Amino acid sequence: MTTLYYVPVDEFDRVLALDIPIERRCALFAALCRINTLYMIMRAGSGHIGTSFSSLDLMCWIFLNELGYQRPREAHHNDIFFSSKGHDVPAKYSALLGLRLLDFDLIHKLRRLGGLPGHPDISIPHMYTNTGSLGMGISKARGMALARRLQGQPGRILVLTGDGELQEGQFWESLQPTANQGLHEITVVVDHNKLQSDTWVARVSDLGALERKIQAFGWYVERCDGHDFTALQRTFAQLNQITDRPKLLIADTIKGKGVSFMEHTAMPPGDDRLYPYHSGAPDDATYARAAEELIIGANRLLSEMGQPALTLEAVQQPARSSGNHLQRLVAAYADALVKAAEHNPKLVALDADLARDTGLIPFEARFPERFFECGIAEQDMVSQAGGMALQGLLPVVHSFACFLSTRPNEQIYNNATELTKIIYVGSLAGLIPGGPGHSHQSVRDISALGAIPNLLLIEPSCEQEVALALDFCINRTAESCYLRLVSVPCAIPFSLPDDYELEYGRGIELTPGEDALLFSYGPVMLAQAVYAARQLAEEGIGLKVINLPWLNRVDLEWLQATLAGYRQVFTLDNHYINGGQGQFLASHIAQLKLADPPRVHQFGLQDIPVCGTNDEVLRAHRLDAQSLSEQIASVLAERKTR
Amino acid sequence: MTTLYYVPVDEFDRVLALDIPIERRCALFAALCRINTLYMIMRAGSGHIGTSFSSLDLMCWIFLNELGYQRPREAHHNDIFFSSKGHDVPAKYSALLGLRLLDFDLIHKLRRLGGLPGHPDISIPHMYTNTGSLGMGISKARGMALARRLQGQPGRILVLTGDGELQEGQFWESLQPTANQGLHEITVVVDHNKLQSDTWVARVSDLGALERKIQAFGWYVERCDGHDFTALQRTFAQLNQITDRPKLLIADTIKGKGVSFMEHTAMPPGDDRLYPYHSGAPDDATYARAAEELIIGANRLLSEMGQPALTLEAVQQPARSSGNHLQRLVAAYADALVKAAEHNPKLVALDADLARDTGLIPFEARFPERFFECGIAEQDMVSQAGGMALQGLLPVVHSFACFLSTRPNEQIYNNATELTKIIYVGSLAGLIPGGPGHSHQSVRDISALGAIPNLLLIEPSCEQEVALALDFCINRTAESCYLRLVSVPCAIPFSLPDDYELEYGRGIELTPGEDALLFSYGPVMLAQAVYAARQLAEEGIGLKVINLPWLNRVDLEWLQATLAGYRQVFTLDNHYINGGQGQFLASHIAQLKLADPPRVHQFGLQDIPVCGTNDEVLRAHRLDAQSLSEQIASVLAERKTR
Repeated sequence: MTTLYYVPVDEFDRVLALDIPIERRCALFAALCRINTLYMIMRAGSGHIGTSFSSLDLMCWIFLNELGYQRPREAHHNDIFFSSKGHDVPAKYSALLGLRLLDFDLIHKLRRLGGLPGHPDISIPHMYTNTGSLGMGISKARGMALARRLQGQPGRILVLTGDGELQEGQFWESLQPTANQGLHEITVVVDHNKLQSDTWVARVSDLGALERKIQAFGWYVERCDGHDFTALQRTFAQLNQITDRPKLLIADTIKGKGVSFMEHTAMPPGDDRLYPYHSGAPDDATYARAAEELIIGANRLLSEMGQPALTLEAVQQPARSSGNHLQRLVAAYADALVKAAEHNPKLVALDADLARDTGLIPFEARFPERFFECGIAEQDMVSQAGGMALQGLLPVVHSFACFLSTRPNEQIYNNATELTKIIYVGSLAGLIPGGPGHSHQSVRDISALGAIPNLLLIEPSCEQEVALALDFCINRTAESCYLRLVSVPCAIPFSLPDDYELEYGRGIELTPGEDALLFSYGPVMLAQAVYAARQLAEEGIGLKVINLPWLNRVDLEWLQATLAGYRQVFTLDNHYINGGQGQFLASHIAQLKLADPPRVHQFGLQDIPVCGTNDEVLRAHRLDAQSLSEQIASVLAERKTR
Repeated sequence: MTTLYYVPVDEFDRVLALDIPIERRCALFAALCRINTLYMIMRAGSGHIGTSFSSLDLMCWIFLNELGYQRPREAHHNDIFFSSKGHDVPAKYSALLGLRLLDFDLIHKLRRLGGLPGHPDISIPHMYTNTGSLGMGISKARGMALARRLQGQPGRILVLTGDGELQEGQFWESLQPTANQGLHEITVVVDHNKLQSDTWVARVSDLGALERKIQAFGWYVERCDGHDFTALQRTFAQLNQITDRPKLLIADTIKGKGVSFMEHTAMPPGDDRLYPYHSGAPDDATYARAAEELIIGANRLLSEMGQPALTLEAVQQPARSSGNHLQRLVAAYADALVKAAEHNPKLVALDADLARDTGLIPFEARFPERFFECGIAEQDMVSQAGGMALQGLLPVVHSFACFLSTRPNEQIYNNATELTKIIYVGSLAGLIPGGPGHSHQSVRDISALGAIPNLLLIEPSCEQEVALALDFCINRTAESCYLRLVSVPCAIPFSLPDDYELEYGRGIELTPGEDALLFSYGPVMLAQAVYAARQLAEEGIGLKVINLPWLNRVDLEWLQATLAGYRQVFTLDNHYINGGQGQFLASHIAQLKLADPPRVHQFGLQDIPVCGTNDEVLRAHRLDAQSLSEQIASVLAERKTR
């Protein structure tokens, strides 16, 4: 058990009611928000502390003063404010909760079903657009501004961006037209905390002469300390006077601001360690130290104003499970990649600022000259890989599946038309983790990439199969490959034989069963399928579960033999049903010449994924073992057969 | 009949052998290349004259001097030169042919099967990367340069880009890292002809302070007249001395340079007509005038050098067919959109520099304030549409299907998660026209977009259905829609009833037949299917052809009823089989509870589309009526049934 603390809403009321200068009220309000932001992330077990803290003072300034919410009746209801980076949303929630602009009970429901999504979603009040994939903010704002002009509606649009985000091409694509159109309604605030996901922006992909660059695109640019409310007051006053062009404020901030040991400035410049508080909840002891520091700091501010200390609420949080015996596919991949690279000097690895999350830290350490950090610039990374392949290298290209399959989609196809060999590795694939929300839940990548000729899609089900799949991609096929990796650690109720080998287009039985057949892939869905099979076995129903790691290939001879005797076949996708493996398989089953063709039932996503804990999300989409076994039993109960 | 003229290769030999100053040799060589470029485009019936002519002098300078091919033995074989824009490839071919670096007989085979593809493809010698979709050039070059450094290989990399191309985000995304890495091997030459596909770059999406912008990204920048060989000599000498950073030359050029009335400078500045020679072959009379001017010019240069006039070869080209009674879906769409906009004041149209090709000229003329020209910036356009929809407008977003479905793929999904309504219209969809090559043949868009929830995909089969489909998208559904439009004018051997209405998820019979059923969509494949049905009818085989315009939706009740009695079902996609309508349908057929399920055979693309005339391309992929009827007859001949 750990005790978590949060500031109740009436304490925010107290701060807002104080007759003190704006900058002091903001500082106090932000101090309270930091306590609650940390609480929400701890309670959720995940979230982005570093960027929430770096942007909190900016958010508070904007809400209280630019949007006028320190006196709600005076608020500028025509103004729009949103964050383009989106992973700072716990900070925004804490401000909205403190201003009573959201039901305060939601403070306990970050990343929970029916609660507050892990990235902004317009289903929540005061969220004006869905963000979480980077670089779209100015484009969205321009569309809003043009629509408002056309409809004669007034109002400013304030967009918060990250600095790593400025590596995205779309940011630059959107700058010049916004200036050409003189859209002075738009003010962009760059939360320039100097660190991106993995480490220093300057190390990942330096932004160069940022002010000069943005000025050259025709914008009015200011720069100030993003934690100095006096400077923010002065600078925003200046920005608000410019009425002939769009405006951008480079706000120098500190990642993790407010907790001494989380502040990036605690890392000496040139330190090449990874910044440890980008994403994820801290451990209990770290939380306790951080919370204590935040509470002491807030009380000091109150005391300086002659105010009594905070009255806090406390919540007991159960200890998190230790995670023994979990399959960690990304870690297994990390090992396998280093081993493969030892045998293949042509192998190079490319990353888009997710080296930690895609398993590239060991590779970078072992082969620094063969590691290419491309920054948050997926299109550039993929075309660069194309150039490398044309010059004889074997590029292995990494990002989260949601981004890799979509942002450089045309670039991947262009590479494919050159018939070179490139391996794409998309991690964080599938419906869970359910916390980050739909921008990060990659449930459309099989569809987005599956039709590309000469591109083989494989998803391994366990650590053992990861190594085999990578070996297959590198050594056993001439095709380019997309390796789809689940990132969430999984307990799996099955194992593969020690002498298991991948056979092209073929699968392997995980559970025996005579009554029905189920095809699936990957640890998440196969675990649910095997649990469902156990449940059904107790009811006297035999479900044969097959692990078929090939997502867009199948051996028709094997398929025909496997189907023999089965009248009911199920497919289970960690993906939308449309364009998933199940649809691919069903269409091939329909092609076969079978004496008695089975009926094929497809499980998978049909709607945009909900946000919540992993269990909540699987259940909500009826993809958990219990829901699956019920649905399968119900189909088999019909048994009038087809 | 028209007489077309070309310069035989020995005339190029003559020019290269002349002992004259470099700049004069280049001018003469380029003059000959222009005649042949025009010949190739006339012979092909399509191609890009304007940009081929604006870049020709640059290309000739680079080939003869930078790459040293005026004396082939002295050529810098380690150097790489490619064009990122790619549609100037006729110019590059003409130079390669004149230098005997390609089999000269290929001069007659631009855009023909087995000939020279409509955009660069590495299957052709001296083509180093596939281009045709814009903005990838510097990224590709950087990958090549890094691969060469890693492998200890020397050599420069020269990349030619367009200026409209600089609107693409990937261009800017690639600039800073290239400078950060000090990749001085890379020299980029911008063919700054001031016009993009439709009209003036400055009108479409002004580039702003181009030199200052690129310098701010850390590049060395020079600027000179791209038709002045003395200036090119001086400027390249300067560029080649810079060895600490990448270099970019802004070459001021004239679109259509060399033919007085094709030069963009013949349009007075501020002229708001569209530039008429961006793409497509001119009519016969225009060709004759242009060729005469080019030949006179070349002979004048020769005469100045005391040389006899050119000996030309002549070829008779049959008159092109008049194109009566063709279905022109884009024109029908253009009319329907204006009518719809008259009834719906919220409707706005967005374009990415293809207003002419996507049917937006009448809309822009009628509703200038509701027309948004976004330039070649598809990601920005789509997110902007998202912002507009959030503010209450109904955005209709246009580009070629190949670009719209892929470049802003993540942005379309992001919009879809907001549950707003947006209509995307992708023209140039499908396998033909076969001339532009695989970068433009959109045969992956159904797959790339089909899994997006709340996004309905529709492809109309004729002008009549275009209007109905647009009406459905606007007035009869709450979902966002992707309207897939074939651009090539088609003769169609079928018609729809006068009182035809679209029924959600349902199709309509075009030919009767008892022996087999075929589902397809769109004018291209339905025409082939109906011709195949007629052929089969002569052999006593009845093929029922159904037009099913819904690409990712089907009414299961209708499907079940339609299938009754058929043992053999065919699907026919103007798309890869993977992820196409056929796969979608087959997977739904496999779901149905049928007494006697049919076997489903899928026709569609399995390989990267070839380049050629429309007939060549359909036949090469066995998707023409003759091939289809043979394959269907062969399946039915088995008739042992399934």
